[in-house]
Order: sequence, then C-alpha cells, then structure tokens
Amino acid sequence: MPIATLKLYHSPSSPNSRRVRAFLDEKNLPIPLVAIDLAAKEQFSQAYRAINPRSVVPTLVIDDGTAIGEVPAIWRFIEESYPEPPLLGSNPKEKALITMWERRMELEGFAAVMEAVRNAVPGLKGRALAGPHAYEQIPALAERSRQRVQDFYVDLNARLSAVPFVAGAFSAADITAAVTVDFATKAIDMPIPVALTALRRWHEKVSARPGMAA
Amino acid sequence: MPIATLKLYHSPSSPNSRRVRAFLDEKNLPIPLVAIDLAAKEQFSQAYRAINPRSVVPTLVIDDGTAIGEVPAIWRFIEESYPEPPLLGSNPKEKALITMWERRMELEGFAAVMEAVRNAVPGLKGRALAGPHAYEQIPALAERSRQRVQDFYVDLNARLSAVPFVAGAFSAADITAAVTVDFATKAIDMPIPVALTALRRWHEKVSARPGMAA
Repeated sequence: MPIATLKLYHSPSSPNSRRVRAFLDEKNLPIPLVAIDLAAKEQFSQAYRAINPRSVVPTLVIDDGTAIGEVPAIWRFIEESYPEPPLLGSNPKEKALITMWERRMELEGFAAVMEAVRNAVPGLKGRALAGPHAYEQIPALAERSRQRVQDFYVDLNARLSAVPFVAGAFSAADITAAVTVDFATKAIDMPIPVALTALRRWHEKVSARPGMAA
Repeated sequence: MPIATLKLYHSPSSPNSRRVRAFLDEKNLPIPLVAIDLAAKEQFSQAYRAINPRSVVPTLVIDDGTAIGEVPAIWRFIEESYPEPPLLGSNPKEKALITMWERRMELEGFAAVMEAVRNAVPGLKGRALAGPHAYEQIPALAERSRQRVQDFYVDLNARLSAVPFVAGAFSAADITAAVTVDFATKAIDMPIPVALTALRRWHEKVSARPGMAA
C-alpha cells in the first residue's frame, strides 16, 4: 500500500499521537499528517466525529476510507502492512511478550498519568475520561494515580536493571514507556526519581532515537 | 506446538480467565488448565508469583517455560500458533479493526465493571487495583463506573443495531463484550436494560456458542 494513500489525524501535543509518530519514524514511513486542534476542541467537530466518533486522536485513515482508532490498532495495521523493522515482534512468543509488556506500560504507566491529569486539570472539569461522554473529576483518584506513577517507576527500574529494553530488545513497549516518562515529567511534574539509575539510563538511550523527536 | 506442552493458570470464577477459555474453545484447543484458588489468595503465593509477578490470572506457560500474562497477549500467542479459525482477523485491516473494537469493549465495558467491583466490595478494601500494589478504594469511583457501564450498554446497542457482531463478523471482541455483560449482571447487578433489544439479541446469540460455557 503506497503510504500516500494513508493519513494520520493527530495532535502535535497529544502523547497518544506521539506513540504513533514515533512508531512510524522507527519504520521510516513518512505518512501524511493532519493536525487536529485540541485547544479549539476540533476533535468534537462534526467533521472529525465522522472519522472518530469517540472524538479522540490519533486516527489512521486507510486507502478505502476505513478509520482505525486506538494506538495498538493503528500500530497493528502498520506492522502488518510494513513489517520491517518489526516493533511488535517477529514470532509468536515475541509477539505475545511485546503485547504483554506494552500493555503493562500503558495500563500501569501511561493510563495512570492520564488519569492524574484528567482528574485534576481545571480545563478538563466534566471531562475526566476521554471519549463522547461527560464524567466529573474525582480529586481522590488524581492523588491515587500519582502514587501509581511512583510505583510504576520503581517497578520499571527493577525490570530495566535486568534487561536493556522493556521487552528484552527495543520494541513498541519502549515507545509507550518513554512517552509515559515525558508525559509524567511535563504534565504532572513527576520526572524519574534520581535514585532510579537503570530507568534513567534507559530513558536517555531511548530518547536519543530520532523517532522520539517525531 | 503440541497443546499438551502448554498450561493455562486460571480461576473458574475469574472473568479474565473466561475470556481465554472461551477463545480456546472457539479454536477447539483443550489446553491443560491449572486452577488458582483466589478465595485462598493462592495468586499471592510464592509459587504463583514466580509465574506471574503481578499475582493475577490468567497466565499461559509455554513449552520453554516462558510465562505470558495479560489476556490480549495470551490470545496473540494462541492465534499466531493456531491460526484457525481466526478470532483476531485475517488481514491487516481486519486485525486492526478487531484490535480497536476489542480494546473499546475492554476499556469502556470490562474495565468499568471491574472498577465498580474493586472500589466497592468490602473484601477488596486496600486492593482497589489488581496487581502487586495496595491502593485504597474510592467510593465515588465505583459510582462513576456504574454510569460508565450504562453508557457502554447504550453505545454497544447502537453499534449492534447496525452490524451482527461487534467488529462485523464474530471475533474476540464479542468474547470480551459478552463476558462483560455477564460480569456486570452477576457482580454489580447491572443486566442489559430491557429496552436495548439489539444488544439483548446479540447477547443471546453469542451466549449460545459452546465457548461461552467454557
């Protein structure tokens, strides 16, 4: 499939969009990007809702007009269409282990940061969860989420003291984990604690990859 | 890989274990099961923690001793090793769309029911999230989660008014959605509202598949 027939709707500031941009860059796939202006609430416009009824970025639109939402789903399409270099594994065991580790990075790390942000930021009152429905913020949840991010850092530091990358070799799991660290640093002022040296070393190494600037 | 070399650690009462058992049954793969006694807190035993450090079920252990946790990761291993019949899609577009829909069923449905349970049940005080860490329950979160389950039902009913199965044809997305309905019915007394006829018809149809009794 020629990459010019694909289109990625994204936002430059959205960490979920960054997960996809970094993935594309690792594969050297300059897919055309269309920016959605989240500050202007463009994700709730009728035009964008026709593409993604959940009003979230990113969305990949493919040659026949099909819209694919959700980061792991977009990744899957890209990996199946452009297998090299593999970022989701190249045999059943690797594919399963990368799915497992990437998911843990997302549920224990990324989702905890997102929850801390959405339940605390004044501009997201009544919008505590992404998607089409309105839910009120819960301040106690924002606090619990910060504790989760701390636990995530400690657990990941232990993992990275034993292996060079989250799932062993570099993979999509490292993209999610590195985006999580930068998101936590910027959005909730929780950088990696100085004492967690294995995590800090890994973060430096992954941050040096060109894709992490995408 | 001969199925006798695989082993699934599960719990008969765990809805996440049920997602894997149903998947195996659809593929007609009688993989040996090992039950973990959650009531006796066997998931926190040293023996089980050596298999799954997050102390959750299910876990698939494969021929070389590698332990795979997380339902989508276990599914991925099984699908790659035993492709027929495909439950995760058979071309890049199907694979991506099933990943997308299954994930929405999990995050908007399954996870909301789980959150409602874990933040409310007296026996789970201090255990509001699965995994190795202790987090206190948040009653307001349990309430918000119930609202999310209601919204999930309405959204899924609209989807199933347009298509026969969640992702179009029967797939793993239907397994997660059907397990979610039964989990909500049993654990938080939220059966499908009578007015949501498309959802009810779909649930009857999926429940009749032998795998849903597995």
